[in-house]
Amino acid sequence: MPGLENSAPEQLGFVGGRLDRADHIRVKPELVAQAFASPDARCLVLDGLDPVTLDGHLLMEPIGPEAQVGDHLLLGLEAGKRPIFVRLAAEVGSNFVPSPRSRSIVAEVPADEVALYGAARSLVHWHGRHPYCSVCGAGTRPEKAGWARRCGTCDAEHFPRVDPVVIMLAEHRGRVLVGRQHSWPQGFYSALAGFIEPGETIEEAVAREIKEEAGVSVHSIRYVTSQPWPFPSSLMIACIAQADDDALALDETEIEHAFWCNVDGVRAALAKDINAPFICPQPMAVAWHLLKYWVDAQVAPSEPSA
Amino acid sequence: MPGLENSAPEQLGFVGGRLDRADHIRVKPELVAQAFASPDARCLVLDGLDPVTLDGHLLMEPIGPEAQVGDHLLLGLEAGKRPIFVRLAAEVGSNFVPSPRSRSIVAEVPADEVALYGAARSLVHWHGRHPYCSVCGAGTRPEKAGWARRCGTCDAEHFPRVDPVVIMLAEHRGRVLVGRQHSWPQGFYSALAGFIEPGETIEEAVAREIKEEAGVSVHSIRYVTSQPWPFPSSLMIACIAQADDDALALDETEIEHAFWCNVDGVRAALAKDINAPFICPQPMAVAWHLLKYWVDAQVAPSEPSA
Repeated sequence: MPGLENSAPEQLGFVGGRLDRADHIRVKPELVAQAFASPDARCLVLDGLDPVTLDGHLLMEPIGPEAQVGDHLLLGLEAGKRPIFVRLAAEVGSNFVPSPRSRSIVAEVPADEVALYGAARSLVHWHGRHPYCSVCGAGTRPEKAGWARRCGTCDAEHFPRVDPVVIMLAEHRGRVLVGRQHSWPQGFYSALAGFIEPGETIEEAVAREIKEEAGVSVHSIRYVTSQPWPFPSSLMIACIAQADDDALALDETEIEHAFWCNVDGVRAALAKDINAPFICPQPMAVAWHLLKYWVDAQVAPSEPSA
Repeated sequence: MPGLENSAPEQLGFVGGRLDRADHIRVKPELVAQAFASPDARCLVLDGLDPVTLDGHLLMEPIGPEAQVGDHLLLGLEAGKRPIFVRLAAEVGSNFVPSPRSRSIVAEVPADEVALYGAARSLVHWHGRHPYCSVCGAGTRPEKAGWARRCGTCDAEHFPRVDPVVIMLAEHRGRVLVGRQHSWPQGFYSALAGFIEPGETIEEAVAREIKEEAGVSVHSIRYVTSQPWPFPSSLMIACIAQADDDALALDETEIEHAFWCNVDGVRAALAKDINAPFICPQPMAVAWHLLKYWVDAQVAPSEPSA
């Protein structure tokens, strides 16, 4: 993909995909077969669920003569014409935690390829976890070019999951709430987060999670931005909310520690200042951008006079 | 639930739940059993997946002596103390279309009960579609008070789905795009919509769907509001986007017809004016509120002079 720079250091990960997802092809098996047989077609190479790169790009190989279209998923069309597939794998594990290799990809290939890898990873993982029908227990097989599976016995159709997650800052008098889980590296804090449950709006989930995890009631919840997070297939929905007060009552099974941090502290964390009050996530994660968005919205501190 | 009015005529459906979801109880089987055994506990009665009402409220019954805690899901605590359960059912079907009974509930019970019914419906439906493990095909059973299922053979854990959907208006020079599917009642139009796919942001999904369905490129996508839609378990994410131009190229397999409507036309549709250029969804649906939000943001037309 000539002309694209590698990801900027502050690039949010897994966003900015440029493939045409070509849903008009997916639903027509003859068009899928034609795309698969095209000499232009390429197969994105994965190592298990990890990325493989060559010369600063994701490795893509021509489709081999023994390859079966039914084992592949059509990710889309590059530049509107070259079909890009990925091979479906059987063994994938649960994968709620990014491997080091899937983290470092962000610094290695252009942003749109990071997004392509993320989509492929989520989809390959989902297929690996769905060889059987949840309705009747019989075998399922891919259809719609890998964008669904169908049960051979009860005919139930199953679709890849996308799990919406809220990730949010509570704000109170010029400070925001950051917290840490027990398993995180020492000094590491981030925005609170949690899965949206059936029967909730985004805003209701934000309020419930902050109340559950930190004992803080919030109002005036605003959407900021979103990000797909392919471990295994979340949609991160980033919000800022106003806290009613700053008293904390932590759910200590979830949160080891949390505190209200002022703008100077958050700015220092974003800048990786060694004296920062906490270590924050990398820019590949939406939490970094949520903290940056909040800092940028604050009044700039007065510069020391010369 | 004294003191609550029945839903206002313009109430968005399935939002405003008031139960404490009590996630601290879910993970402790002894607390779940204690809640189930409490004389205060109630079981929300469903007729299949449809609601049952009595005197303007959802019907709730005491827990019977033969009832098994393992067949029930803890929806939460009413007023912070009364446990509300729902019984899990085996036969649920696919249920992508709301039944007449599940639509009319919006006018019958208070808004927070509509939300409770929606959450219960999504969860009961999910359990009914997941008696088997998608990883290994063996049987699964509920755990975490019905907020998960676990495979008895491979130990895989499965969680209820929430499927994020974008629903959006493209705007161009004072008009918005509305479209209709082939199966809809004559004259009925709504905002375009579609499922968010793995590897997409909310904004990327909005742009893709409008391009796929109507051939329109958009920019400046803004989030407006969200709604859980329990048929079977969507999270509707409503947005407005600016169209680059107004030329349409419809995907005729998805969209029968679409057109750009001005503010007077949309206002007439919202008011159910018999001369309106289209019939729009009911206020229970977020599409109504998205259209209303857009109309309210336009400059009011000049009143005819007296």
